[in-house]
Amino acid sequence: MARSPHWQERRQAIVDASAHVFARGGYHATGIAELCVANELGKGALYHYIGSKEELLAAIHDRVMDEVSSSAERVAATGGSPRDQLMMLGDELLDIIARYPDHVWVFLHEFPALTGERAEQFRERRRAFEANVEAILQNGVESGEFRDLEPRLTAMAWLGMHNYTYLWLKPNHSPRDVAKQFADIFIQGISVGGSTRSGR
Amino acid sequence: MARSPHWQERRQAIVDASAHVFARGGYHATGIAELCVANELGKGALYHYIGSKEELLAAIHDRVMDEVSSSAERVAATGGSPRDQLMMLGDELLDIIARYPDHVWVFLHEFPALTGERAEQFRERRRAFEANVEAILQNGVESGEFRDLEPRLTAMAWLGMHNYTYLWLKPNHSPRDVAKQFADIFIQGISVGGSTRSGR
Repeated sequence: MARSPHWQERRQAIVDASAHVFARGGYHATGIAELCVANELGKGALYHYIGSKEELLAAIHDRVMDEVSSSAERVAATGGSPRDQLMMLGDELLDIIARYPDHVWVFLHEFPALTGERAEQFRERRRAFEANVEAILQNGVESGEFRDLEPRLTAMAWLGMHNYTYLWLKPNHSPRDVAKQFADIFIQGISVGGSTRSGR
Repeated sequence: MARSPHWQERRQAIVDASAHVFARGGYHATGIAELCVANELGKGALYHYIGSKEELLAAIHDRVMDEVSSSAERVAATGGSPRDQLMMLGDELLDIIARYPDHVWVFLHEFPALTGERAEQFRERRRAFEANVEAILQNGVESGEFRDLEPRLTAMAWLGMHNYTYLWLKPNHSPRDVAKQFADIFIQGISVGGSTRSGR
């Protein structure tokens, strides 16, 4: 069903406000009544926008995954060496984590609450992003820049280093500076000959 | 109050079984009734062992933090170069994460539910472990093995890489092999001249 721009905008605001509520109280422990209060809406009006509590959770996931997917597309479109692409992707990822602390908190903690097709879709999107990281690493191995390490483990090491910042990245950190030091360590770590040409 | 070894043992079993329940259902959403069923105990008997639901949560945290603290002590006692110490600490940390998947899940997701003195104690123990990592890094800088990077960010990068494995480390991964590749990447990443002498 086509929805008006106003509906879309209002829904987005509800998704964002609800991410904050879930991040503080947990998904399972937060009732619809609490979401109604936070969004200043009656139950019927709330359901008009969100469909169901699980659909709301999925929308919070999508809000982050949309950003993550776009950043991966931007990085691929920019071209550049695998080293440059990995630096750019890390920079974009930390920027997303810094801009959406509540969403990322909910995303990383509550994904097991998604069921059926929604769980499947989330797993696919997450897997696609991991595959993006692995592809950059693989390109670097082929171009002779990166060492031939186990690609899956290397991708998970990179993702862990970056994703885990959601626990401590604060407004007083510049995500860009953090991304720069992480790229410096990681790229020297995987480079052939331990090259330090990571643009530090 | 001194407790019998039997009481201690029974309590430990309750802590472990409850970690599993919290990991599946979330701390806030899990009621005492559910914990009674999981532990095959009445409410009075359960409280006799756990004191309160929050004390139980703190005990789950302590179960992991006790292991983490001991491993840091073992590493310090072993001596060896900063490079060796960092490798050993990563190996021990992934071993703990692989052996306590439920506890670590609860630990990383539910720590904001701890209040007052328990929250303070947990923050102190976590901070002490982070300081252990920073100290190893600093020793490496002083010995000329490691580059002079921002110590806090470098420690958080290392911790993120390792801690985040709780989301994907499965029995079919050998935590030892994962730790080895992570050490290989990270130590080359922080070494002066990008040395690859990381024992791979």
